[in-house]
Amino acid sequence: MSAQIIDGKAVAAKVRDQVAVKVAEMKEKHNYTPGLATVLVGEDPASATYVRSKQRMCERLGIRSVGHTLPADASQEDVESLVSQLNADPEVNGILVQLPLPKHLDEEAVLNSISLEKDVDGFHPVNIGRLAMKGREPLFIPCTPHGCMVLLEDAGVETSGAEAVIVGRSNIVGLPMAMLLQKANATVTICHSRTKDLVEHLKRADIVVAAIGIPEMIKGDMLKPGTAVIDVGINRVDDPEAKRGYRLVGDVDYDSAAEVAGAITPVPGGVGPMTIAMLMQNTLRAAEIAISKQ
Amino acid sequence: MSAQIIDGKAVAAKVRDQVAVKVAEMKEKHNYTPGLATVLVGEDPASATYVRSKQRMCERLGIRSVGHTLPADASQEDVESLVSQLNADPEVNGILVQLPLPKHLDEEAVLNSISLEKDVDGFHPVNIGRLAMKGREPLFIPCTPHGCMVLLEDAGVETSGAEAVIVGRSNIVGLPMAMLLQKANATVTICHSRTKDLVEHLKRADIVVAAIGIPEMIKGDMLKPGTAVIDVGINRVDDPEAKRGYRLVGDVDYDSAAEVAGAITPVPGGVGPMTIAMLMQNTLRAAEIAISKQ
Repeated sequence: MSAQIIDGKAVAAKVRDQVAVKVAEMKEKHNYTPGLATVLVGEDPASATYVRSKQRMCERLGIRSVGHTLPADASQEDVESLVSQLNADPEVNGILVQLPLPKHLDEEAVLNSISLEKDVDGFHPVNIGRLAMKGREPLFIPCTPHGCMVLLEDAGVETSGAEAVIVGRSNIVGLPMAMLLQKANATVTICHSRTKDLVEHLKRADIVVAAIGIPEMIKGDMLKPGTAVIDVGINRVDDPEAKRGYRLVGDVDYDSAAEVAGAITPVPGGVGPMTIAMLMQNTLRAAEIAISKQ
Repeated sequence: MSAQIIDGKAVAAKVRDQVAVKVAEMKEKHNYTPGLATVLVGEDPASATYVRSKQRMCERLGIRSVGHTLPADASQEDVESLVSQLNADPEVNGILVQLPLPKHLDEEAVLNSISLEKDVDGFHPVNIGRLAMKGREPLFIPCTPHGCMVLLEDAGVETSGAEAVIVGRSNIVGLPMAMLLQKANATVTICHSRTKDLVEHLKRADIVVAAIGIPEMIKGDMLKPGTAVIDVGINRVDDPEAKRGYRLVGDVDYDSAAEVAGAITPVPGGVGPMTIAMLMQNTLRAAEIAISKQ
């Protein structure tokens, strides 16, 4: 058996195209351009790269983007006062504080200071609380897990009644993904480093979400035939034959898993492109909320 | 095999005694008496009974309690303005809005209006968001699931690495219980009405939490020998031989389950008494927070 490849590049392009069309319509109908403000504290090269690629994507889709950079030793007050200035700025619809923040800062307090209606990353505690609760809807869903849900839907994977096993319990992926799948009526199990028998869980899963950060940890022989595999991991492994001396692999051993799974996301080109696409969608949504309140 | 009976009455009494001792100490050291304000909207007899029993328990433990009642047709503004008055009242440490509220009211908005530091029920969206996230702690843990955790601990049940299966996904019990067990390093599965094979899950569970509201649904032959069973259900079933014409049973068929389980909570006398005990503990904690800010 060879799995259906879930083409994240193609799905992300579709999402971005829809956003671009709606942004253009918004300009025409309302003379309004959505705006995203990014906040980068310090000079972590990976974080700087992520912020730049978000800004570039904004430009491509017609969204205004304004970058704010604070020094690595910025105080809690510095960061929160920047956020509160952005909260008050009518030209800013979404505020993205790039995580992780330097360790001396209180991340939760910073996220909490973002206006709920500009929380395009979906990490405000109230948005997370709503995500966790039945009968409540967050204004914004965190981008990476939201992207995973869109991929499952696009691939025609039924979530209602499905056995879903999530490996990894990070605040950014594992935990919100569990909440989303649970709301979609899956029976959700969250596995992690203390789980006694991971393979037992994987073997019964109709949907596997891997978000552990261990290169190629999940092999094909651990999976149930026909399962849908969403691989959130992006890991560098040394590869002397590659141009850059490394290649990117997921948390799932793609070759063996693709033999067993019914559907699988590749790395790169699976979940990766979805995160920015969903951020763009959330920014558009923030602008729609702002217009509706005018 | 016959299960260890987890005596909720005894554990709750222990918790209450500790609260009473600390309340007395607080009066002596700080000349301060913790205060709980209850808010009852409408005249639902069950809700009125719950509120009265909470007030009586306050009296017993030396906590001041003030009851507020609003008519069933109170407006959203009426309820929120009462809450904001209680938020501002220095003699009120905890605010308990009895749920469910009449259907015309926006429950989440009411809960959201309670000051975080007075949210002794633990249902404020920010507290729930913190409960769901790694590395964050809510100020107050919802009382019933907190009581279940205390019972497990008191019975010596190891949670780390345990397979925990929660049946039911209510906002008040199932979902916060999943978060608590997950934080305690259990591998948690949330089962519900859409779950395909509940028995398969129960059969592998080291810990079962039943919170479904279906009388005696879980039978002994569905359980793994030695499992710990926490039965949150309280259901009335007709019983012509009983004085009142009914008796109370849990979601678990106690007699058959007690033959298989390693430990089990009875109904009544299991989880039931814990809820109020934990509310008293949260109210004490709210007073401690208030004193620490003086």
